[in-house]
Amino acid sequence: LESDIFEIISVGNELLIGKTLNTNAHWLAKMITELGGFVKRCTIIRDDVDDISFAIKESVKRGVNWLIISGGLGPTYDDKTLQGVAKALDRELIIDDDALKMVEKKYEYMADHGILKKAELTPARVKMATLPKGSKALPNPIGTAPGVIIDGGERKIICLPGVPMEMEAIFKESVIPLITKSIKKFYHEESIHIIGIMESDLAPLIEKTLANNPLVYIKSHPKGHEEGISKIEIQVTAMAEESSIAKKRVEDALEQLVSVIIEHGGMMDKGSTR
Amino acid sequence: LESDIFEIISVGNELLIGKTLNTNAHWLAKMITELGGFVKRCTIIRDDVDDISFAIKESVKRGVNWLIISGGLGPTYDDKTLQGVAKALDRELIIDDDALKMVEKKYEYMADHGILKKAELTPARVKMATLPKGSKALPNPIGTAPGVIIDGGERKIICLPGVPMEMEAIFKESVIPLITKSIKKFYHEESIHIIGIMESDLAPLIEKTLANNPLVYIKSHPKGHEEGISKIEIQVTAMAEESSIAKKRVEDALEQLVSVIIEHGGMMDKGSTR
Repeated sequence: LESDIFEIISVGNELLIGKTLNTNAHWLAKMITELGGFVKRCTIIRDDVDDISFAIKESVKRGVNWLIISGGLGPTYDDKTLQGVAKALDRELIIDDDALKMVEKKYEYMADHGILKKAELTPARVKMATLPKGSKALPNPIGTAPGVIIDGGERKIICLPGVPMEMEAIFKESVIPLITKSIKKFYHEESIHIIGIMESDLAPLIEKTLANNPLVYIKSHPKGHEEGISKIEIQVTAMAEESSIAKKRVEDALEQLVSVIIEHGGMMDKGSTR
Repeated sequence: LESDIFEIISVGNELLIGKTLNTNAHWLAKMITELGGFVKRCTIIRDDVDDISFAIKESVKRGVNWLIISGGLGPTYDDKTLQGVAKALDRELIIDDDALKMVEKKYEYMADHGILKKAELTPARVKMATLPKGSKALPNPIGTAPGVIIDGGERKIICLPGVPMEMEAIFKESVIPLITKSIKKFYHEESIHIIGIMESDLAPLIEKTLANNPLVYIKSHPKGHEEGISKIEIQVTAMAEESSIAKKRVEDALEQLVSVIIEHGGMMDKGSTR
């Protein structure tokens, strides 16, 4: 498990003033979990070189194996992620040949298709190909800014754009193959909805179930009251070396939990399949 | 500004496996920004006492003035926020009289209204009133778990439930009055949508505008291409001691920016009001 620790850093003032909802981190966390990775922390920071650099250093100090950073790769002055990475790792920023070719091709394509007048490599465009030394550019199938990976073996730092479609496309094309090659764990999750029992009365029943099923995680989410009936969602998750083992652990725990819930007057809500 | 630094910590495995979108942090960031606070960082961590404690210590070390924590105040074993706070601050957990009365009253009300059979204070219910020494309980107008504040003057730690309606209700009733009493800053933001110019060509125009308007922040958000036309949202923000000054700074910068954009062949998108 220790080599599967992921952290996600989202860079952008728009996330910290409550303008933009951080759907990128949510999407990444879901994908990584399904791939068997363990997402230990998500962080949002401002478009500030020192903040970015400090946050990366903190992650590295905590022992992250995969640091996924999204946002701040574009051409404008407020796109500062690569400067922050370079500062954190104490590396120079240099124009990367592969990245420059990727950027150049994009603008040539746009000029050829009349989207753009001139395909010249302005400083703002060259900026997107200026990477920390030792980086590898990851092709962006949709937008102009390439993704970036700094592969330190046990610690990989991967930078993706903040535009959701671009972030997702690079992740699918270039990052998923790396993760599946490295991680051999499987995740399983099932949820049920119950009624007729208070969360505070459910608490000891969950603890009892966990004592018998130490390899699962059980979490209850109160969903409020309706006509005096309390509704709770219960989510059971497990990780294992085999998909079938993770599934069996979840199912065994759920079966035991449901039977004690019914003993204590609770019942499955309609629509819940177990 | 230095006494207005906010950080938000969201506690919950469900956020890190990509099950639940972190709308709480988004809502809090928006409210705090509108109240004149500066949200410097948001963090999501697991339901783990050591992780919670460590994240709080890191925030304190970074010099946070207002640390808002949501999630993990409920009655079940996986609600670990107050244990994490107690550990971070090296304080005992003790049953708080005010909090216990709040919890007791809620269950009595539910028993009186037939929602619940018995109002007895089970260990799971007493848990919600077991707070780090020196805490003050904040009434929860909707649910059972009280909010908690540990007011250290220049550094306040505020814990709110993870259920959005409860979090919002406690924040509005008990936290907003504290913030408005303490912070005398105003925030202003305006956005425009432009077409006909690439983000990489916009970059030097933004930099020029910023050179003349150093007290605003300008951020561009590419919104993709439609029929070969690139669309960009531009957001200009400012903070000031007076609401009218913040507004004037934003408007002056926008006026200058729009005029250079038009000079360079861009234009306002339909629906953009400036």
